[in-house]
Amino acid sequence: MDNYYMNRALELSKRAVGFVNPNPLVGAIIVKDNKIIGGGYHEYFGGAHAEVNAFKNSKEDVEGATMYVTLEPCSHYGKTPPCADAIVKNKISKVVIGMIDPNPLVAGKGIEILRSSGIEVTTGIMEKEIMKTNEIFIKYISSKQPFCIMKTAMTLDGKIATSSGDSKWISNEKSRAYVHELRQMVSGIMVGIGTILTDDPELTTRRDGLLSLNPTRIVIDSKARIPLEAKVLQCDEKTKTIIVTTEFANKGKIEAIKQKGAEVIVTPSKNNLVDLKYLMIVLGEMGIDSILLEGGSTLNYSAMEEGIVDKVITFISPKIFGGTSGKTSVGGKGVEQVKDSIMLCDAEVTRFDEDIMIEAYVVKV
Amino acid sequence: MDNYYMNRALELSKRAVGFVNPNPLVGAIIVKDNKIIGGGYHEYFGGAHAEVNAFKNSKEDVEGATMYVTLEPCSHYGKTPPCADAIVKNKISKVVIGMIDPNPLVAGKGIEILRSSGIEVTTGIMEKEIMKTNEIFIKYISSKQPFCIMKTAMTLDGKIATSSGDSKWISNEKSRAYVHELRQMVSGIMVGIGTILTDDPELTTRRDGLLSLNPTRIVIDSKARIPLEAKVLQCDEKTKTIIVTTEFANKGKIEAIKQKGAEVIVTPSKNNLVDLKYLMIVLGEMGIDSILLEGGSTLNYSAMEEGIVDKVITFISPKIFGGTSGKTSVGGKGVEQVKDSIMLCDAEVTRFDEDIMIEAYVVKV
Repeated sequence: MDNYYMNRALELSKRAVGFVNPNPLVGAIIVKDNKIIGGGYHEYFGGAHAEVNAFKNSKEDVEGATMYVTLEPCSHYGKTPPCADAIVKNKISKVVIGMIDPNPLVAGKGIEILRSSGIEVTTGIMEKEIMKTNEIFIKYISSKQPFCIMKTAMTLDGKIATSSGDSKWISNEKSRAYVHELRQMVSGIMVGIGTILTDDPELTTRRDGLLSLNPTRIVIDSKARIPLEAKVLQCDEKTKTIIVTTEFANKGKIEAIKQKGAEVIVTPSKNNLVDLKYLMIVLGEMGIDSILLEGGSTLNYSAMEEGIVDKVITFISPKIFGGTSGKTSVGGKGVEQVKDSIMLCDAEVTRFDEDIMIEAYVVKV
Repeated sequence: MDNYYMNRALELSKRAVGFVNPNPLVGAIIVKDNKIIGGGYHEYFGGAHAEVNAFKNSKEDVEGATMYVTLEPCSHYGKTPPCADAIVKNKISKVVIGMIDPNPLVAGKGIEILRSSGIEVTTGIMEKEIMKTNEIFIKYISSKQPFCIMKTAMTLDGKIATSSGDSKWISNEKSRAYVHELRQMVSGIMVGIGTILTDDPELTTRRDGLLSLNPTRIVIDSKARIPLEAKVLQCDEKTKTIIVTTEFANKGKIEAIKQKGAEVIVTPSKNNLVDLKYLMIVLGEMGIDSILLEGGSTLNYSAMEEGIVDKVITFISPKIFGGTSGKTSVGGKGVEQVKDSIMLCDAEVTRFDEDIMIEAYVVKV
């Protein structure tokens, strides 16, 4: 039954996808006499923690009950008082924990508080699933840099465009709808200036709701070539844009971009391009915990080569373009030998009707 | 229970994969009093039919029993007498049939014989699975042309080689072992001259056994550029080779190729290349019911453009090469617009550890 209740807590936690960044997704369930008497989750950034919401929503006295919580209860005063204390105060008799807090500074301290108050504690239930759900949080809390997902879409012969450059649309509607869900999971969407010049995308999500913020649009543009009328330069308080450039950019152009309401980051140059590793540190300091990298192929290769990509999500559509000049998802110089490949692991396949989505993680060397 | 017994018959039939071409794979099970009392399959080309083998292998009197057979029993004298007659003679009381004979000249006639003798007949049990298992036979019997499978292997960024041309190996061992199984399913393996000049492959299978023949190696070589020392020109009675060329080939070279033991087909030229549609008719007349097309990318595109490909099998290895000059599986001119794509359908995914195999069928327009 532990897995059953923990799964309920995990599913609850996922309701907040995209609303809590850079906090973790956390869900909690309170069980008494084999009955769920309460449940809650961390609903939005700055809001109450899952445990507190579970107490608030309980229909019965929680004394002597068991709490299932996906993440180790916190032990420190942050935006809210420590949850471990609240659990003790509410006389919970047993706590089942999914994953231990990945922050090395606090890991285990919540459990310590519980155990020293005589509460029985079990850990590691559905740990793998919960860690996957919180992969953004885990990377960010431990490195202070964003978790970067490279998203591509190609034909079964590996093309992201026809020889004439046509690419609308390779994936089907369900796949494209899921890309909008992906955009909602992250704090930033990153593209190269080539994509802006070719497609002039808005890079917004379709999400409604009072609490919803669009992810920050991040354009890698080493020479600040972006046209001032580009759609991504239409900013408002819900839709921010960052143009990332180098010393090669015209200073007047930088000012003009700022006038449009966008932020400008000037990084050192690396091979005449934006230093992506440096950029990840800056973005991390700005609170951006996750990035969806949506190409094009030159930026994708730079990102791969610089080692900033954590995960790859590729949509494969069962069609063939052919064409020796059709672009592929990762361009640039490329590796010379098969043995030098950028290796991926833990590949998983999901179907969107006829489309096939492959998710895999970059093996860091 | 019909599906259970039919599945047993289907599994039996598959034991003969690669041994019966251009005949169908057929399995039969005899059931009496809810007990399997016999079973057999069409074991090799020219051998006894499945029904006859099932009778031969029966441990009990078959009178009054039910026969499950994947394909409609034959009604004509071919290499063996009609199975429908044998079923009547053996006093089977019920016959459950997977698929009707796809040959329009004989379809339904076996069933007619059975029914007119008072035997109960059911059809269409596991029809879809059985048709898939016999996709080669169905195409060949109805068109007299080979079923053509294009096999490719690529990285998750769509490359079949690095920018320097390295491609050994993209797929893992399990995938490559399955390619050898694929080769054993077909009568011919087709490659372009580019593949011979670059890789000098043997294009044999690793199968042992007395009955085993290697599939015929077919090289598309419009100008007969093949070096006489190429490995595919080492022929013996178990391993045939066909060089396909055009009027642009040097006549002396053609003679020299024949001296090596290879067969030479000269087709009309189409855009200065081998006319692949014409070739399919010739190969069909030679009894080649199936071809595994193993590239390279130029030939793959020609084959796609000419509409000779029925099925695509793509292995995707979770690695990234990058590189704007890395080759993709289908080259050539390519389509101009997404709407002109060569569409595939019925995509299925199979895992070979970390590798992902996608099978799909070409939508014929």
